[in-house]
Amino acid sequence: MRDESVFDELKEECGVFGILGHPDAVQLSYYGLHALQHRGQESAGIVATAGGGFRYHRSMGLVNEVFNNEIMKGLSGDWAIGHVRYSTTGESSLSNAQPFVFHNDAVGQLALATNGNLVNADALKQELESQGAVFHSTSDTEVIAHLIARSTKPTLEEAVAEALNQLVGAYALLIMTNDSLLVAQDPHGLRPLSMGMLGDAPVFSSETCAFDIIGADYLREVKPGELLILDRDGMRATRFASPASRAVCSFEYIYFARPDSDIDGINVHTARKRLGAQLFAESPVEADVVTGVPDSSTSAAIGFAEAAGIPFELGLIKNRYVGRTFIQPSQQLREQGVKMKLSAVRKVVEGKRVVMIDDSIVRGTTSRRIVTMLREAGAKEVHVRISSPPVKYSCFYGIDTSNRKQLIAADHSVEEIRQLIGADSLRFLTEEGLVQAVGRRKENETCGHCLACFNGNYPTEVDESAVLALEGKG
Amino acid sequence: MRDESVFDELKEECGVFGILGHPDAVQLSYYGLHALQHRGQESAGIVATAGGGFRYHRSMGLVNEVFNNEIMKGLSGDWAIGHVRYSTTGESSLSNAQPFVFHNDAVGQLALATNGNLVNADALKQELESQGAVFHSTSDTEVIAHLIARSTKPTLEEAVAEALNQLVGAYALLIMTNDSLLVAQDPHGLRPLSMGMLGDAPVFSSETCAFDIIGADYLREVKPGELLILDRDGMRATRFASPASRAVCSFEYIYFARPDSDIDGINVHTARKRLGAQLFAESPVEADVVTGVPDSSTSAAIGFAEAAGIPFELGLIKNRYVGRTFIQPSQQLREQGVKMKLSAVRKVVEGKRVVMIDDSIVRGTTSRRIVTMLREAGAKEVHVRISSPPVKYSCFYGIDTSNRKQLIAADHSVEEIRQLIGADSLRFLTEEGLVQAVGRRKENETCGHCLACFNGNYPTEVDESAVLALEGKG
Amino acid sequence: MRDESVFDELKEECGVFGILGHPDAVQLSYYGLHALQHRGQESAGIVATAGGGFRYHRSMGLVNEVFNNEIMKGLSGDWAIGHVRYSTTGESSLSNAQPFVFHNDAVGQLALATNGNLVNADALKQELESQGAVFHSTSDTEVIAHLIARSTKPTLEEAVAEALNQLVGAYALLIMTNDSLLVAQDPHGLRPLSMGMLGDAPVFSSETCAFDIIGADYLREVKPGELLILDRDGMRATRFASPASRAVCSFEYIYFARPDSDIDGINVHTARKRLGAQLFAESPVEADVVTGVPDSSTSAAIGFAEAAGIPFELGLIKNRYVGRTFIQPSQQLREQGVKMKLSAVRKVVEGKRVVMIDDSIVRGTTSRRIVTMLREAGAKEVHVRISSPPVKYSCFYGIDTSNRKQLIAADHSVEEIRQLIGADSLRFLTEEGLVQAVGRRKENETCGHCLACFNGNYPTEVDESAVLALEGKG
Amino acid sequence: MRDESVFDELKEECGVFGILGHPDAVQLSYYGLHALQHRGQESAGIVATAGGGFRYHRSMGLVNEVFNNEIMKGLSGDWAIGHVRYSTTGESSLSNAQPFVFHNDAVGQLALATNGNLVNADALKQELESQGAVFHSTSDTEVIAHLIARSTKPTLEEAVAEALNQLVGAYALLIMTNDSLLVAQDPHGLRPLSMGMLGDAPVFSSETCAFDIIGADYLREVKPGELLILDRDGMRATRFASPASRAVCSFEYIYFARPDSDIDGINVHTARKRLGAQLFAESPVEADVVTGVPDSSTSAAIGFAEAAGIPFELGLIKNRYVGRTFIQPSQQLREQGVKMKLSAVRKVVEGKRVVMIDDSIVRGTTSRRIVTMLREAGAKEVHVRISSPPVKYSCFYGIDTSNRKQLIAADHSVEEIRQLIGADSLRFLTEEGLVQAVGRRKENETCGHCLACFNGNYPTEVDESAVLALEGKG
Repeated sequence: MRDESVFDELKEECGVFGILGHPDAVQLSYYGLHALQHRGQESAGIVATAGGGFRYHRSMGLVNEVFNNEIMKGLSGDWAIGHVRYSTTGESSLSNAQPFVFHNDAVGQLALATNGNLVNADALKQELESQGAVFHSTSDTEVIAHLIARSTKPTLEEAVAEALNQLVGAYALLIMTNDSLLVAQDPHGLRPLSMGMLGDAPVFSSETCAFDIIGADYLREVKPGELLILDRDGMRATRFASPASRAVCSFEYIYFARPDSDIDGINVHTARKRLGAQLFAESPVEADVVTGVPDSSTSAAIGFAEAAGIPFELGLIKNRYVGRTFIQPSQQLREQGVKMKLSAVRKVVEGKRVVMIDDSIVRGTTSRRIVTMLREAGAKEVHVRISSPPVKYSCFYGIDTSNRKQLIAADHSVEEIRQLIGADSLRFLTEEGLVQAVGRRKENETCGHCLACFNGNYPTEVDESAVLALEGKG
Repeated sequence: MRDESVFDELKEECGVFGILGHPDAVQLSYYGLHALQHRGQESAGIVATAGGGFRYHRSMGLVNEVFNNEIMKGLSGDWAIGHVRYSTTGESSLSNAQPFVFHNDAVGQLALATNGNLVNADALKQELESQGAVFHSTSDTEVIAHLIARSTKPTLEEAVAEALNQLVGAYALLIMTNDSLLVAQDPHGLRPLSMGMLGDAPVFSSETCAFDIIGADYLREVKPGELLILDRDGMRATRFASPASRAVCSFEYIYFARPDSDIDGINVHTARKRLGAQLFAESPVEADVVTGVPDSSTSAAIGFAEAAGIPFELGLIKNRYVGRTFIQPSQQLREQGVKMKLSAVRKVVEGKRVVMIDDSIVRGTTSRRIVTMLREAGAKEVHVRISSPPVKYSCFYGIDTSNRKQLIAADHSVEEIRQLIGADSLRFLTEEGLVQAVGRRKENETCGHCLACFNGNYPTEVDESAVLALEGKG
Repeated sequence: MRDESVFDELKEECGVFGILGHPDAVQLSYYGLHALQHRGQESAGIVATAGGGFRYHRSMGLVNEVFNNEIMKGLSGDWAIGHVRYSTTGESSLSNAQPFVFHNDAVGQLALATNGNLVNADALKQELESQGAVFHSTSDTEVIAHLIARSTKPTLEEAVAEALNQLVGAYALLIMTNDSLLVAQDPHGLRPLSMGMLGDAPVFSSETCAFDIIGADYLREVKPGELLILDRDGMRATRFASPASRAVCSFEYIYFARPDSDIDGINVHTARKRLGAQLFAESPVEADVVTGVPDSSTSAAIGFAEAAGIPFELGLIKNRYVGRTFIQPSQQLREQGVKMKLSAVRKVVEGKRVVMIDDSIVRGTTSRRIVTMLREAGAKEVHVRISSPPVKYSCFYGIDTSNRKQLIAADHSVEEIRQLIGADSLRFLTEEGLVQAVGRRKENETCGHCLACFNGNYPTEVDESAVLALEGKG
Repeated sequence: MRDESVFDELKEECGVFGILGHPDAVQLSYYGLHALQHRGQESAGIVATAGGGFRYHRSMGLVNEVFNNEIMKGLSGDWAIGHVRYSTTGESSLSNAQPFVFHNDAVGQLALATNGNLVNADALKQELESQGAVFHSTSDTEVIAHLIARSTKPTLEEAVAEALNQLVGAYALLIMTNDSLLVAQDPHGLRPLSMGMLGDAPVFSSETCAFDIIGADYLREVKPGELLILDRDGMRATRFASPASRAVCSFEYIYFARPDSDIDGINVHTARKRLGAQLFAESPVEADVVTGVPDSSTSAAIGFAEAAGIPFELGLIKNRYVGRTFIQPSQQLREQGVKMKLSAVRKVVEGKRVVMIDDSIVRGTTSRRIVTMLREAGAKEVHVRISSPPVKYSCFYGIDTSNRKQLIAADHSVEEIRQLIGADSLRFLTEEGLVQAVGRRKENETCGHCLACFNGNYPTEVDESAVLALEGKG
């Protein structure tokens, strides 16, 4: 949930939300997307229908910038799906805004909202273009739309299943027509997607925090490889792929999801506290205070502090008002000591041995900056503890780790990283510790996590050339 | 050139501009589009290339709202095409903004800018959708893009020719890739498209006023059915359709085009003066002053006044500052006499016999309002003279006459219209008078004009069901 | 009415509007200010009251930018005064926005709206500051407010009269409290201020065009030195200064006022036509076409053309869409021939002897540019005729002529100016011709005009040091 | 630091910042104001000078909305003072934006930035208006400006001292001219104001967090009744009032100040932790989890949890993205359970005995809402502990407690409040506990705090009629 402009950090792709059969479907989607805002700040959109055609609005910006009362009034309907997307730049952004709306001769209007990333999007796109397809966006979602549109299957359900079976990668998706909603998750369940009920109205959301904000009750997860078909008469659960063991993205627990969300019934905040406690168990340290990098590492820091019996303190304060229009200090001013988003609290750290908990290290530049800040504020020792294993491999499922070459842990030992960031000590959580602390129920003897960014064991095929391309880019 | 929000009036669809091989191509496109702004105020866009990929920006708004210095800096390239589009409403608008950019496996990126309207767009779209095509906009331009993308012809030139041959309607279009520009006009040349030279750089524009603003020299018109292929080595002129006699839209002369533009070598202002003179010759009247509805009828009014020997006066003043955010007076305030965009000048018309020249009558509501305004300002007599024949038929080529039912002349005699608008006398120009006054050189014994909106003789096939649909709408 | 950003031209200060006792007072003020928009584009404001306190809104921008429906709803009241102000730059601008609102112990809230300029503002301000007054703006209006506030007279009427008697310069002003409106004009009547009636509701406006737009009837001018006091019971006319002969600013007729306004019963458009006719009478020329610089010189050009029997043509076209955000062409592009706001119409002027009518020459740069433009478009001869005498002296009454050193006519002969602007011939109107053509009724043997900018005969004392300061600035 | 739109909470008035003799004075002021943003979100402003005149910009909005790079470039100077102001509504707001700039005959331009509130502002204003003063804003700051301007003392220092001696209330202020800076605090030191050094450049700030963000070192507090005079040669410390014992606002420690600020050498976060620990010592409770209302009560909650040996948890999550344009849920949706800014974390509180720490109770509506939220999320018991005594009296020194009638503790017992908010138990901190936990050094036997809002013992005279007026308003 940290701002993305300044620090080197991981970025999530998107959040989806949908609700059927509620007179306030549009308003509830607004609040639902609002709760999912941390999953994407680039654009937002809602498509609504009362059965007789779509009303929709999508634009660049935060949910409360994209929608106002006037726009909301124009979006009538008792069915609605919505989407938030993370921040990139460039003209093409708006055409990437979702839900993606298109028209198909067979079923009429369709709206698509997805969270995730396809491994084989480029290959599919190239193939479709060679058949004369015209693409307007750079999003994977459009590829899915084309596959559905080109299917010759007699029903939408079959067309969607056929399309999904051509996809390799991570996706949680909602497909709405004027009289049906299809909901699916990739066969490995890499991205979270939960189902709830608000009275009689089924609700779907990338995270359960959106259920809480609208007062809906959690029902269950959408399962890997599952395809739900809902219409005005009810819901039918089918499978488009054989059951595989779930491999949910570990970083949802470590960093992305809101602390008040549950994933597969496990609360994120408490999981993070256990990560902190496990981290202390694995790598204890003598110290005077424990502090976390706000806001994402607070839970882990509390867990660490409790396990260690060391006071948890607000040793680092985040400035809440760093918006998109914030003027960045020049390099010169930065060297003179001008901070921006984080300040160390001198009185808290001065003369102290400080444990600084962070959720991850990507490029290492942020960690170095924070360690320096703590030392300048008088910390006697700075011990860095990371509540996840070292990130060594690129993600192909929707996390913007870009290029392996930028991952400091890809080619540096822990000791080398410690030296680079200037800490007195540095420890990462182990994979085993991570799995154990989160505490997912084992399915079919697997750990239930995707750990590919730590160990390179990708749950799907990955495009080797893409890996090389990514690596060659740096 | 009148604002479109208040009066019942005809609307043009678009303007296109392109320039190749000039270091300031982007800036010049900005000024070119600026000169074409009267042809479209909804959205504007520029696509530029220096051969190695497109840089582009499109957005809702006027040219000077869409572009700023920062955006301009991001649009480097020595080739550029641009587009302005007229004002509609609704979320889908931005996806209708042009130039339309898409990617094709064979030729890479393409940018399409068109002016005009297809008669068979819906039929083509339906056919394409039944083949699995995914459409994102409601614009005809996207249909053309799909046809090009789906062509199996080996070269872009052939693919474009194949696509164009499937189109029925009016179009003047520019297709840019990273190393070629294709320029075409429909076989009847319904919409204007001129070619000029700025030094060595070829320039294309919907109207020649864009040449003047950038200091380019006029070279020639793009001919009906012609397909020009330009690349970094030069230009080749081909035909994709057999030569037909030109039938340029009469309303370009009567109303749309800027007075300083020339169409087929005929200056628009002077043509309008001749329309005014002809109108007097056909329908003289005893009067004290001649006034025109600003700004579009000023030239015709001057011509009428000169021919009649009656003083031309500013009897109607237009308020220049009525912008999009202008608060419209309530019906009640309007009834109390609150005006908005036009005021009658009491001292000019009081006690006078006034000839009011207007370029056309669509629904008649504006004419009635102006006649009333002149009478309230003390005009003793109001004689309305219209510098075009009665508009009786819908246009299928890009003019928003919508529905025949809304055309007052479709089912009312001139005398009935006179009574409805409350004029002392009303006369329209004859078709013969129009053709003769504009003075186009006759090609193949034809008049060189499309007069379909006056007499129903459409130069292309028209979709009878579309005609009926339009008529049924009202 | 020409845009101010590009050409060297004269600028007006402000427009004022007021209406009492009408349920739609706020809406009508909006439309009234809208009609006065040409007198000021920097800021706009409306203060309204229903007797129990002020509701007001002022902001930078055009009337239709400053107000929207929501803001209008917040401005209830059956009394209202409004103001538009011309464009300057800088942070202090908003504090200069009017109506100026302040609170006084004796009379409660006051709102002040003025048009004009004081000669002794700086002296008064300095004196007030030495007595401890605190100024927030750079406007003369605040000086008037302070003088009223400091008066020890028992009634507001007397306090205002006392204040006005300390002012030297031009002013037309409205002072509103919760239960009275005071209206005054300086003893020379330098700025126009008219009174009208909308039913029973008195209306005041800098120009009568605002009456026409709201359907009000013109009643009379506010007289030089007059002070009107209106309350909910009626109106009383008094004098705060002995009657002087009116010396209305000549440039209101020549350039500032809207053509549909009347000043002292003389319509501006027809006065301008007479200026053009007089100009021909004084300085005839053999030519093929007459053209005016749009929009301000159109009336004079028509008058010239009619008198001369030479066709009036649109030889220069103004681009209507040059807004504040327009990107100016670089010097280089300008040299390459890129135009911005005006284009010459080649077909109209090519090979012709052209008479170009303009209303005035300030620095001469615009004239040179237009003459060049006409020659580049093929004009064989360009004869410039100016519908006013040469501007040789600074104005102290609200016209931004700045510095005499910038006035080309201050130290150049007509022949020198002709050479500088590159015309084949150049003639100005004579002062006598101006006075005669406008045709004001002579009052007390005076011409009824302020001609100070032509001949240096200022109707009031002027601050010699201010004159020198202005001259020394250049 | 909680958002002000939704909850009933206390509001701070302002923050001030100043820096002298630094080439980056403007940029550093930007970052300094940014650090003080939590003290005011309505408007922001910076005035800069290099000795030869002021450059300034003030506008409505957050610091990063008010300033951009272009505006910053226009603000050159090596001296600068800045201001942030809290959020109100209404047209008059911009005229309330600070620094307040005015011109005085004796000393030239002055800029004033103040934090605090005067008890006798209205009386002073009335007196000044009766002497003819003109006020433009509703701010106390303008009253101070007038008093300075009206002083007949020969030097600015004496004029300021004379003016300050007429003030009753709380104020921390900066007065800048082109060659001097005067810094003062009211005789009771009700508002914090610290001095630091950035190299050789003196820096002043309402809170020390602004020193940290720019890398400045803390030097000392500005003392009650002290008047510092700085010019380009150095600093001189004088007194305008005899030394009184300091009575700093308790709520700076409890709620307003940023946790990383120090006030009189006491860190705010650690003081809050001690408040929490003291609160447990005074009112222990058996419970399973401790949670705080984010963000302001987090420190106290940590302190309570540590003292109690009960785990601290994130039982309440704040949605970070509730901006000014956020659409509030309708009453109906709220009743259906739609939350906005806070959500309870079900997994954390379900089945648990929860201690909820908040910093204060104003009207009680927020507390009731949060208690309800926790119960709906499954909390078995909810014990509310408030880290301050009950607020029973209005504040006259700059905290927006408005009206005593709105203070629930003014006329309800603790038990009554408990019932109203629906808690299982409710305890407030004692005054003694507050004083002891903050741990200010006693000066002259006093506690060093203003506790007036708890016990009605105002350190200054207060206007009895104002008290009554406030009480009568409700």
